[in-house]
Amino acid sequence: MSKGLVVAVVGATGLVGRELLETLRRRKFPARKILAFNSRRQPTLAALRGAELVFMVSSDSVSKRFSKPLARSGVWVIDDSSAFRLDPEVPLVIPEVNEDALRRDRRLIAGPNCTLTGAAVAGLPLIRAAGAAALRLASYQAVSGAGREAIEEFKSQWRAVSLSNGSDPADRLRRLQARALPQPIALNLFPQVGSFDGAGHSSEERKVALELRKIWRLPKLPVSATAVRVSVLRGHSLALWIEMKKALSPGAACRLLRRAEGVRLWGGNSYPTPLSAAGSWPVHVARVRQGAHAKELCLWVFSDNLLKGAALNSVQIAEALLRRGWL
Amino acid sequence: MSKGLVVAVVGATGLVGRELLETLRRRKFPARKILAFNSRRQPTLAALRGAELVFMVSSDSVSKRFSKPLARSGVWVIDDSSAFRLDPEVPLVIPEVNEDALRRDRRLIAGPNCTLTGAAVAGLPLIRAAGAAALRLASYQAVSGAGREAIEEFKSQWRAVSLSNGSDPADRLRRLQARALPQPIALNLFPQVGSFDGAGHSSEERKVALELRKIWRLPKLPVSATAVRVSVLRGHSLALWIEMKKALSPGAACRLLRRAEGVRLWGGNSYPTPLSAAGSWPVHVARVRQGAHAKELCLWVFSDNLLKGAALNSVQIAEALLRRGWL
Repeated sequence: MSKGLVVAVVGATGLVGRELLETLRRRKFPARKILAFNSRRQPTLAALRGAELVFMVSSDSVSKRFSKPLARSGVWVIDDSSAFRLDPEVPLVIPEVNEDALRRDRRLIAGPNCTLTGAAVAGLPLIRAAGAAALRLASYQAVSGAGREAIEEFKSQWRAVSLSNGSDPADRLRRLQARALPQPIALNLFPQVGSFDGAGHSSEERKVALELRKIWRLPKLPVSATAVRVSVLRGHSLALWIEMKKALSPGAACRLLRRAEGVRLWGGNSYPTPLSAAGSWPVHVARVRQGAHAKELCLWVFSDNLLKGAALNSVQIAEALLRRGWL
Repeated sequence: MSKGLVVAVVGATGLVGRELLETLRRRKFPARKILAFNSRRQPTLAALRGAELVFMVSSDSVSKRFSKPLARSGVWVIDDSSAFRLDPEVPLVIPEVNEDALRRDRRLIAGPNCTLTGAAVAGLPLIRAAGAAALRLASYQAVSGAGREAIEEFKSQWRAVSLSNGSDPADRLRRLQARALPQPIALNLFPQVGSFDGAGHSSEERKVALELRKIWRLPKLPVSATAVRVSVLRGHSLALWIEMKKALSPGAACRLLRRAEGVRLWGGNSYPTPLSAAGSWPVHVARVRQGAHAKELCLWVFSDNLLKGAALNSVQIAEALLRRGWL
């Protein structure tokens, strides 16, 4: 056996792709060779078959083209797109939550949407202890979740506004055309992430509900999400309400969270912010308190959307395959 | 009878004070004379007794000093501070919601906290039709809610960050000292508005629960709020879940909201943003959809924190007194 794996990354120069390469390096992932593909150096099925493991961090359409053929030919594929997340044949995995969903004969594995990751990790120890009755969340999502063009748009809006006394920055921003995002985002926020369905839910809100139910294996759990884009570069925050089947005190919840895998619990009244916690690996949980009644807990959750919400989670899935000796 | 009233404004040069003077002018309030006081031209009890109506838009401590003595001597006092909101002797009034709480012999009247105003106005027609079982809200609160110094702090943070390629704006912001706000707010957000109590709730979250229960006359309503400061100059947005006693469809809710006083309902999947709706008078309601179950509605609510959340509401209370012939 040669030492180390041949790994391919499809989408290597995107926001998530860069984080993925950096995360592989920082976690000393045993890669002998990394084949990096992007829109200039396009992948082919033949080239990707030369790898033992392929990270798909590109669009849904690129993933649809390559992922299943690769998996059928024996290559492990870890897909960060939304193309296969709800496919019953495809495990949807957050290793701290449902590593046991991995199967030796299911070589295509999906990572979940970046917004629900924090809720899935933070909520798990609580619903294991007290059962789940319903979940509500409001998100505060960073611009980087919408990709590189959205970041550039945000930066150009920022530069166009001086915020010096006398000028009306709002007036200036209203005249700027938004392209990558549906509205100007500097000095603004909007409750639209993705497109709306007939019932008025955005695609992001649907993903949160459907993917969380699959990961927690609670197909009928009532989930209601409001997904909001805010004027932040990196890191998704969540106001989270978890209604349980029996009462669980904030103190008991903190004891469970303190030893939960992948969680950093903030004590007292301290809390993470996008500026203080972006770039970090754990799911941060803070402000654990009673919700609307004794069977409900209210939490503040933060995770880096490009890391735990995407690149890091993909690498952790690969590490789980290595631990099992499947890769 | 002379034509028009003698009106005093205490706190006339603050953010809310300026909006109050402008709102009196725009709504053609029948003021014969306006006595404006601020930290330089300080009010005295004797000077304020020369007015028939006093708007208190200053600190809690200034309000505590003057409001009750003035009301006892027959002057109408409309107080925007939080000093007397929970005093059982003081009506806490949003005219569209509970104008009937006004009493001829209660001359001190409080206006509510700016964050719950939107929830109180938007939720009223729904709970009238279907009863209230619980309310949850996550706020997205503008920096102007924290006053002029917070705005200046935000602007100086904005100017300190170039967002040009290559520099790390977060690194720069982390080194800036926050004074008026507990954390840097440019490119950031944080779940702290006010100070925390022993149960982990912030003072803003407590106000939302206690004042809403008083205004809706539902002293036992379960209310859970997460109050968050965001990187926006003006206008508070809310993700709101209203659990009712019986089912109410989104369509039926929209029919009620469309004719509700003080509400602007946004149709289809359109919605207001701080940039598009700041400076306007109504409570904006959008994205009316089912929540976690058929007895719950989820709404997006926006209102201008300085206007409907403060100055406009105070002027509307005065107009109600005029309509009743009490002033």
